[in-house]
Amino acid sequence: MKVGIFLFDDFETLDVFGPVEILGRINEFYQIDFYSAFGGIVNNSHGVSMDTKKLDSILGGVDIFIIPGGFGTRKIVINSKLLDTIKQIAGLSKYVLTVCTGSAVLAKTGLLDDRFATSNKRVFDWVITNGEKVKWIKKARWTVDEKFYTSSGVSAGMDMTLGFLADTHGIAFARNIAFEIEYTWQEDKDQDPFSV
Amino acid sequence: MKVGIFLFDDFETLDVFGPVEILGRINEFYQIDFYSAFGGIVNNSHGVSMDTKKLDSILGGVDIFIIPGGFGTRKIVINSKLLDTIKQIAGLSKYVLTVCTGSAVLAKTGLLDDRFATSNKRVFDWVITNGEKVKWIKKARWTVDEKFYTSSGVSAGMDMTLGFLADTHGIAFARNIAFEIEYTWQEDKDQDPFSV
Repeated sequence: MKVGIFLFDDFETLDVFGPVEILGRINEFYQIDFYSAFGGIVNNSHGVSMDTKKLDSILGGVDIFIIPGGFGTRKIVINSKLLDTIKQIAGLSKYVLTVCTGSAVLAKTGLLDDRFATSNKRVFDWVITNGEKVKWIKKARWTVDEKFYTSSGVSAGMDMTLGFLADTHGIAFARNIAFEIEYTWQEDKDQDPFSV
Repeated sequence: MKVGIFLFDDFETLDVFGPVEILGRINEFYQIDFYSAFGGIVNNSHGVSMDTKKLDSILGGVDIFIIPGGFGTRKIVINSKLLDTIKQIAGLSKYVLTVCTGSAVLAKTGLLDDRFATSNKRVFDWVITNGEKVKWIKKARWTVDEKFYTSSGVSAGMDMTLGFLADTHGIAFARNIAFEIEYTWQEDKDQDPFSV
């Protein structure tokens, strides 16, 4: 399956590379590519630079479209042209996974209207302003609503990605991946120790 | 503090970006740069490409030298010239942190002789062949021996990096970082659910 990860300046490091670690090690099933609005180098404040392809090259959608969070999302939710592109790709993709404030971006496209979603708990008040019709759930490690998966902050993206694997390959498969990376997977998406 | 991360082809994604997420968000203290044997682009099997500087530019050491693991370590432990360079940098750095099979590389330089260390539990038998004088500890999430920190597999690098922050900035500081990234930090370095 083709995995397209949307990058932008000031993306959050682990939002991206947590899911990449998990899907990337199953490279008999998942091939990962990185995309940005204009292609080329994308930077974040953690010193990470990534080379990307143009988002325009996947206008027909991918199998799994991943939208991470980070401070850079603040600029994306006010960029209507870019939101149109994201809406088209997300609409045509088989699955869409957001991590952290990535759900603010997806909400702003309208695709989460009347759907369940969650986000980072530290900036939840800002996130929900981006989708008044979204059924936001504050206490959730991640949510699933048909093809749309949304996770809480940063590390929660790993739990959600393992949850995605459980849904598509079975729980034993997901548990084995967690074991291989020596990760204590929080399997219950409704448990959220960070929502207080 | 200057953080130098050693990259090589087929490094393990999360070994690198777990610690980068944690140290990178404290960028008033930590500046991260990536290095490799010859500089330039380094790739791994998860589809991640990183641009790097030459390892030769930090022969005088850095404040924190990080050696991740991954399949690529198999080639490094038989490259005596590169091991000499790593030994010099690690020897002159204030702290050295290894993740996963990164401890096999550090062990092979001899710098872990008579010191406590751990590594990935899935390939522990191979790792220990790289340092017969190392006091290997099979049941540990991470170990600390003076300036040398070594962690278990992949995700354990995050727990170790938070442990490093606790040792240098205090436990409240480390807990706050874990909270910010919504990460359930395993604070006890001697607990190891993956050593069975």
